[in-house]
Amino acid sequence: MENTTPIIEETQRPPGLLEVDAALVSDITALLESGADGMVMNLVADLYPADLGLLLTRLPAEGAERLFELLPNEKAGQVLAELDDDFRARLLHEAHTERLKELIEELETDDAADVLADLPEDVASQVLPLLEDSEDVRELLTYDEETAGGIMGREFVAVRETSTVAEATEEVRRMADIVHDVYAVFVLDEDQKLLGTISLKKLLLSPARTPVIDIMDTDVITTTPDVDQEEVGRIMQKYDLVSLPVVSPEGRMLGRITIDDIVDVIREEAEEDIQLMSGMSGTEDPSDTVGLIVKGRLPWLIVGMFGAGLSGVVIGRFEHALEQAVVLAAFIPIVMAMAGNAGIQSSSIVVQGLASGQLWSSDVLRRLAKELSVALLNGFILAAILGLAVLVLPIEGTYIPSLALTVSLSMLTVIVLATLIGTTVPLLLNKLNIDPALATGPFITTSNDIVGLTVYFLLASLIYLR
Amino acid sequence: MENTTPIIEETQRPPGLLEVDAALVSDITALLESGADGMVMNLVADLYPADLGLLLTRLPAEGAERLFELLPNEKAGQVLAELDDDFRARLLHEAHTERLKELIEELETDDAADVLADLPEDVASQVLPLLEDSEDVRELLTYDEETAGGIMGREFVAVRETSTVAEATEEVRRMADIVHDVYAVFVLDEDQKLLGTISLKKLLLSPARTPVIDIMDTDVITTTPDVDQEEVGRIMQKYDLVSLPVVSPEGRMLGRITIDDIVDVIREEAEEDIQLMSGMSGTEDPSDTVGLIVKGRLPWLIVGMFGAGLSGVVIGRFEHALEQAVVLAAFIPIVMAMAGNAGIQSSSIVVQGLASGQLWSSDVLRRLAKELSVALLNGFILAAILGLAVLVLPIEGTYIPSLALTVSLSMLTVIVLATLIGTTVPLLLNKLNIDPALATGPFITTSNDIVGLTVYFLLASLIYLR
Repeated sequence: MENTTPIIEETQRPPGLLEVDAALVSDITALLESGADGMVMNLVADLYPADLGLLLTRLPAEGAERLFELLPNEKAGQVLAELDDDFRARLLHEAHTERLKELIEELETDDAADVLADLPEDVASQVLPLLEDSEDVRELLTYDEETAGGIMGREFVAVRETSTVAEATEEVRRMADIVHDVYAVFVLDEDQKLLGTISLKKLLLSPARTPVIDIMDTDVITTTPDVDQEEVGRIMQKYDLVSLPVVSPEGRMLGRITIDDIVDVIREEAEEDIQLMSGMSGTEDPSDTVGLIVKGRLPWLIVGMFGAGLSGVVIGRFEHALEQAVVLAAFIPIVMAMAGNAGIQSSSIVVQGLASGQLWSSDVLRRLAKELSVALLNGFILAAILGLAVLVLPIEGTYIPSLALTVSLSMLTVIVLATLIGTTVPLLLNKLNIDPALATGPFITTSNDIVGLTVYFLLASLIYLR
Repeated sequence: MENTTPIIEETQRPPGLLEVDAALVSDITALLESGADGMVMNLVADLYPADLGLLLTRLPAEGAERLFELLPNEKAGQVLAELDDDFRARLLHEAHTERLKELIEELETDDAADVLADLPEDVASQVLPLLEDSEDVRELLTYDEETAGGIMGREFVAVRETSTVAEATEEVRRMADIVHDVYAVFVLDEDQKLLGTISLKKLLLSPARTPVIDIMDTDVITTTPDVDQEEVGRIMQKYDLVSLPVVSPEGRMLGRITIDDIVDVIREEAEEDIQLMSGMSGTEDPSDTVGLIVKGRLPWLIVGMFGAGLSGVVIGRFEHALEQAVVLAAFIPIVMAMAGNAGIQSSSIVVQGLASGQLWSSDVLRRLAKELSVALLNGFILAAILGLAVLVLPIEGTYIPSLALTVSLSMLTVIVLATLIGTTVPLLLNKLNIDPALATGPFITTSNDIVGLTVYFLLASLIYLR
């Protein structure tokens, strides 16, 4: 039965987690088809929302829709928050306004805004006014989805600075159903300005009549709604925060971001970077349809083919050189591979430094100097190995020492140039507000190929074919 | 002054954060050199530990050591927890046993174990017995650093199942200095077995005399100490946990993992994957020395050069073909680039599916079928474009239609083969317990180049040179 379970090793599964595996998926599919709704509901009753979401994405489309309809509103709402945007949109596209309203009301405001943003505009504008917290959701919808404002929730527990611990506790109780994960109580003044925070632990341990102003922590890290979600992730990671208040430029409390949303952001951004580096759209999901995948990949391949065509033009221009010594063609792959590899190494570390905030603009020259030293060292060693290999290996051709010198010198030059390109291009893109991860992909490889081949054939013409 | 600040946009910095920038770094360097210790301490007094850590990594080596010595034990301990392993080892290598003991006692047990693990063995074995919680730390040191056991802390608040809410609150108070971030109280039986958890919110809102057993949540997600940290990250992300108890196979409570540690793990693993894909060691840090960088990158370049050499051998074997029609050389870059690009796209999405746990082994055939469809579609379109280009563009050579057919057919075949290799290799590596991210790097590119060139020249011999 080995190939019916997730690829994660069996032994690594934590105890106590009900497993969604191929067996469960096929059982439920069969039960749904035979109309045994009661048995289905019994089977899924113990699943966590995240697992129920996983199960839905695994069922055939009609099965998923059927199961989702069977779920009571509360559970369906929880599951909705776990699904990715595309799948959610597909699942909801047949739902009626009334059902949509009830489901969305189960959600926290940040998730509600996400769901609404993905609905067709006419449906969203029908549902929005019906919501209990339509004002909050409407406000959240005004922010860009990938900013602090776009990921914050409007649910938080706040008290005035004149309150006592007992009153703050009472407020936690009053809000208990709305704010599920309370990490801190926010203390605001009459203008809603954030004065400080009190952790639940401090609230629990302080006498009931203590004024909150005496125990609040005034040293609060905050962010503003227009800050990019990647930067929010960096802040929360750096300062080990589980909850980050979002305030207006004037300091008014607008919402809070919780760590579980940020964990998703960090993973999504990492996946996006990897895809951009691999010449993909950045948003391809393993469950995407063939059509979607082709749409995401083909443009990159076409651009890559065009770029490689330019390399071909370079070779074409040196056709007379190749006619004189066809042995030169055998080194084309080495030149191309090394230009690509060295360039990608350098650009990758620059992209990483930019993403983590470790690389400052005052470091740029130092970084370039370091990369140049690395390139020279690696270049010399590789040039020596390659030159020696040409001298020693049984290569058909004349003037072998001169050939060895040509390829060695080319190797050194190409590695240095590729490194310089790999280091500077991501920095430039970053300056232009283009995601530097783009640079680490086919873009660098293509331009380095062109530069590398030009250098190689020029040197060959100068040294070997002279 | 633009190039003296971190590259992150000024407007994206949250308000209220003191900024560590090039100006502060040079001010502090100057003050340290002139011995103005008091002024230095005034300047750094308001910095968060994470910022103080950043400042240390930015100072010249002597400056960093001097500033670290000046810090009081509590602050120095907090900073220590924020530093990466290498830098920490450098900073501590001159510290005396007594100072080390005092610093490490400021740390939580998981950080203490990390610091000890990086110290020279003789130093660690001197310091360990001196620690107050040496038993806990010693136990943590027995686990692999990259497992749940290696990242868990031994600090948690636990009560017996016979306790009341008042007693649990009292226990939170008693442990307040040791357990800084309390998210939940764990309820254990007499054998230390985990029975349930109580969130702080519930504790705060429940009457003092309520038995904990009446309000505890028994539906607890746990993990065991041998589970890989990546899997721990997946669990905490999936179920939106801020704290995850680690239990022995018998269910005894061993420790807990907090979300801030996991956020670091998720980012580190993502950076490692990106580096492996880029042909690097996976652990290169932007602050590494030139020597370290060369050591990390050179082996990959040598392997890459060897692999490309094999591609060269393929071309060498078809030298007679090239001698007959040197125009064939101009298409080498296109064949290599497209084989590489298509292969990387496929392997990248498989690696992502494996990393996120979305790809099950029961999906393998479906995945292959999907990739094959994508490859056929993309291959046909690209083949058509390329063939047309050859027919239309002013290419020097004879039998142009036959050349167009050759390169078109090669393109289609190469894309299909490259896709198959790109899809299967990461799956194979995963089966062999090798990090599949390796596959997406130079490995796939090199093997696809070899396959691609072979196909191309074979087809050229069969069709074009016939």
